[in-house]
Amino acid sequence: MPPVPVRDLDSDEMSMLEELKATVVEANKLLETSGLVKLTWGNVSAIDRERGVFGIKPSGVPYSQLTPADIVLVDLDGNQVEGSLSPSSDTKTHLELYRAFDKIGGVTHTHSVHATMFAQAGREIPCLGTTHADHFNGPVPVCRALTPEEVAEDYEGNTGKAIVERFAGLDPVAMPAVLQLHHAPFTWGKNAMDSVKNSIALESCAEMALGTFHLQADVAAIPSHLLNKHYERKHGPNAYYGQRKG
Amino acid sequence: MPPVPVRDLDSDEMSMLEELKATVVEANKLLETSGLVKLTWGNVSAIDRERGVFGIKPSGVPYSQLTPADIVLVDLDGNQVEGSLSPSSDTKTHLELYRAFDKIGGVTHTHSVHATMFAQAGREIPCLGTTHADHFNGPVPVCRALTPEEVAEDYEGNTGKAIVERFAGLDPVAMPAVLQLHHAPFTWGKNAMDSVKNSIALESCAEMALGTFHLQADVAAIPSHLLNKHYERKHGPNAYYGQRKG
Amino acid sequence: MPPVPVRDLDSDEMSMLEELKATVVEANKLLETSGLVKLTWGNVSAIDRERGVFGIKPSGVPYSQLTPADIVLVDLDGNQVEGSLSPSSDTKTHLELYRAFDKIGGVTHTHSVHATMFAQAGREIPCLGTTHADHFNGPVPVCRALTPEEVAEDYEGNTGKAIVERFAGLDPVAMPAVLQLHHAPFTWGKNAMDSVKNSIALESCAEMALGTFHLQADVAAIPSHLLNKHYERKHGPNAYYGQRKG
Amino acid sequence: MPPVPVRDLDSDEMSMLEELKATVVEANKLLETSGLVKLTWGNVSAIDRERGVFGIKPSGVPYSQLTPADIVLVDLDGNQVEGSLSPSSDTKTHLELYRAFDKIGGVTHTHSVHATMFAQAGREIPCLGTTHADHFNGPVPVCRALTPEEVAEDYEGNTGKAIVERFAGLDPVAMPAVLQLHHAPFTWGKNAMDSVKNSIALESCAEMALGTFHLQADVAAIPSHLLNKHYERKHGPNAYYGQRKG
Repeated sequence: MPPVPVRDLDSDEMSMLEELKATVVEANKLLETSGLVKLTWGNVSAIDRERGVFGIKPSGVPYSQLTPADIVLVDLDGNQVEGSLSPSSDTKTHLELYRAFDKIGGVTHTHSVHATMFAQAGREIPCLGTTHADHFNGPVPVCRALTPEEVAEDYEGNTGKAIVERFAGLDPVAMPAVLQLHHAPFTWGKNAMDSVKNSIALESCAEMALGTFHLQADVAAIPSHLLNKHYERKHGPNAYYGQRKG
Repeated sequence: MPPVPVRDLDSDEMSMLEELKATVVEANKLLETSGLVKLTWGNVSAIDRERGVFGIKPSGVPYSQLTPADIVLVDLDGNQVEGSLSPSSDTKTHLELYRAFDKIGGVTHTHSVHATMFAQAGREIPCLGTTHADHFNGPVPVCRALTPEEVAEDYEGNTGKAIVERFAGLDPVAMPAVLQLHHAPFTWGKNAMDSVKNSIALESCAEMALGTFHLQADVAAIPSHLLNKHYERKHGPNAYYGQRKG
Repeated sequence: MPPVPVRDLDSDEMSMLEELKATVVEANKLLETSGLVKLTWGNVSAIDRERGVFGIKPSGVPYSQLTPADIVLVDLDGNQVEGSLSPSSDTKTHLELYRAFDKIGGVTHTHSVHATMFAQAGREIPCLGTTHADHFNGPVPVCRALTPEEVAEDYEGNTGKAIVERFAGLDPVAMPAVLQLHHAPFTWGKNAMDSVKNSIALESCAEMALGTFHLQADVAAIPSHLLNKHYERKHGPNAYYGQRKG
Repeated sequence: MPPVPVRDLDSDEMSMLEELKATVVEANKLLETSGLVKLTWGNVSAIDRERGVFGIKPSGVPYSQLTPADIVLVDLDGNQVEGSLSPSSDTKTHLELYRAFDKIGGVTHTHSVHATMFAQAGREIPCLGTTHADHFNGPVPVCRALTPEEVAEDYEGNTGKAIVERFAGLDPVAMPAVLQLHHAPFTWGKNAMDSVKNSIALESCAEMALGTFHLQADVAAIPSHLLNKHYERKHGPNAYYGQRKG
């Protein structure tokens, strides 16, 4: 993906992308300050749907050193359109998610410890309480392992494709998270910060689920009317959590 | 609950409420700094019994940004009497607790991870040691699930009513905590800060109880004479923990 | 224990006690900054053996607010000889330890979570590794429960006596920790700071032991030659850990 | 090991060693700030292969107080060639590793809690996910216990020799970690900082493995094609993680 100049963008468009890059920096820094990542084990991107361009963390750069100028811009054909650094090694996974899930504006990948335990065990995270229901409208699914051929051919792209395959029949807006078997979680959201918040929620729900299993090994998921109530009071058309905008 | 002006309050009364709002801000910030909450998963309120008004966190506002002017004042009929922001979505639960438990001055709700594990598993927290006895005079009870009708009709109000129902025969001053099944804990206390301290104690007792079960699955509660001794040395008429006031 | 002036101390002696109080403040603050305590669940004292006086944290005072002037001085008859605040409710336990263990200079009490799990479960902490051997020359013992009569008569004093009873045949210098059944740990050391370091070590050894049990339920204690080697390289006459003093 | 002056070093060489000492200080401080160590339970060294000299933490000195002047220089015959303080008590273990593993430039020893649980249980850490595969090309091995004679004769030197013995047939560059039975982990890397990063990764992989066992007791290691893919994308000749150098 050789860097090429952004095509046909006027100064207003450029400043929109500056804002995008600033939010991507802020969201990546939150990964570290919220304790979701060690070393450089995570990355956040955000997309500008009008321009068809997303900004993503450069690979291996410490969060505390990130500036907007470091953010790599990539178009929906996978071309690097701005930035002198190499983008995250997971860029093609983000790309597949943006291509397939047209309502999402941000993607986060971490190896947060408790969510990763579930990914490594190949167990979905059932909805055991309202904390989970507030963010994820059902059990968080596990995505199948890739075949040796898929790994050899295009590991990161095929990871994204396997996630999209797993979401056949699922609404990615109501279920903004997935656990990749043997690997770790991906979450997404309306924008970069929203996708990080879903990673924070996922990690906490995973930790709580693990402890709940200790206390009651055969615990059942919460009743569907309670799941729906909590999900709807935060995300439904009549949501009443938080402050109403204008 | 449309905002209406506080009725018939003179300037002295207003300054009392200013103080109340300041303590509610301070107590809400402590939720985050003490590690009890992620994102905006918790809220604290405090009541002025003389004026019949309680102040509560606005919904979805980050703790670090809270100022006294953000605190929403609500009367015991559930009317919002001051504040331009929407109050916590859990306001009606707080309201029911203030109505039924006339000795309490503050209420805290969190999704602290270990206490929530017990709530999700539907297991009460037995008194396994003196840390617990110092704060909770017996096992911390679990409150039953709401019916689908109760959820649909008035979820937060009925949550408060179910807690009050669970406390038939229990003294809410000696047992300032409850676990709502499928949800999370509520605690209360003499004032806002005291209710947060009980949330801190509850979380620590839940964490210790979980580990104690690992070490001895069939561990018994501590003897009642020891439970009473610890509770009384902190809270009884002859308490000798802490500094005696004037 | 009404405050009475310190007897027969000249100005040199007074300044020695000032130093003692300063170290007690510093050691108590370390309880909080090292994560061993929540709220005010712990206390540290240190003794001046020549003067037969120990300084201890006042009860219920937040660590961050402590100053040397707050430290309460108590003699070995249990009389409060200086300080206007009430001493820690655990003062009589410290007193019994200083009376019986004449080589110790500091005592720490905490409810640190993992050590307290073992105390609540009534399980000693076996020596499962060299971290433990570096600080505790064998399994950390559990002290028996008090009888109802002992609790009623003099709870804190009898706690200290039960610990001393448990140490019949044990060297408190080589085993500077105990778990009181249903309660929590006490540790001690050469001075205030050394007793806190033993609490830090105990908490970490307890956490590691719990996890080791998860990985291998029937794990055996380490061989005695390795236990002795580690203990001796830090504490024996030919110790070579750390820097040799002048 | 009495201090003797560094032999035949000109001023350029001295300034190289100054740089080495500065990196050893920085890496040791990271042990504490990253939460891998309590008290002074860990040490980092780095070697200058051209000069055949490594710098190591002095024994028992708090991390926050370390300065480059405190770093002790030791040659590959085990002679202390610079520094007035006593080196880490684990110096001879580091020495054996530098002698046997000629591609490594830094060594780290910690008692990080989760890795130490595996060492105490005598269980290797299987590769359960890509976080592990990114750093360790297979299961992290356990090194056998020393005999009483080996402990008595030269405990720290024989520890190093037992590790080297365990690595017969293993590539220490592809497997930069070991768990010493009854003790704790050692890691190494290209330089001081790289060896600390491997300790951070090891601790996280151990924590995740413990939780994965809770969720699925008989979980299998990840497929070898996935292990190789992750290891190679970070460390192989065609690695594409991070930024390419010049």
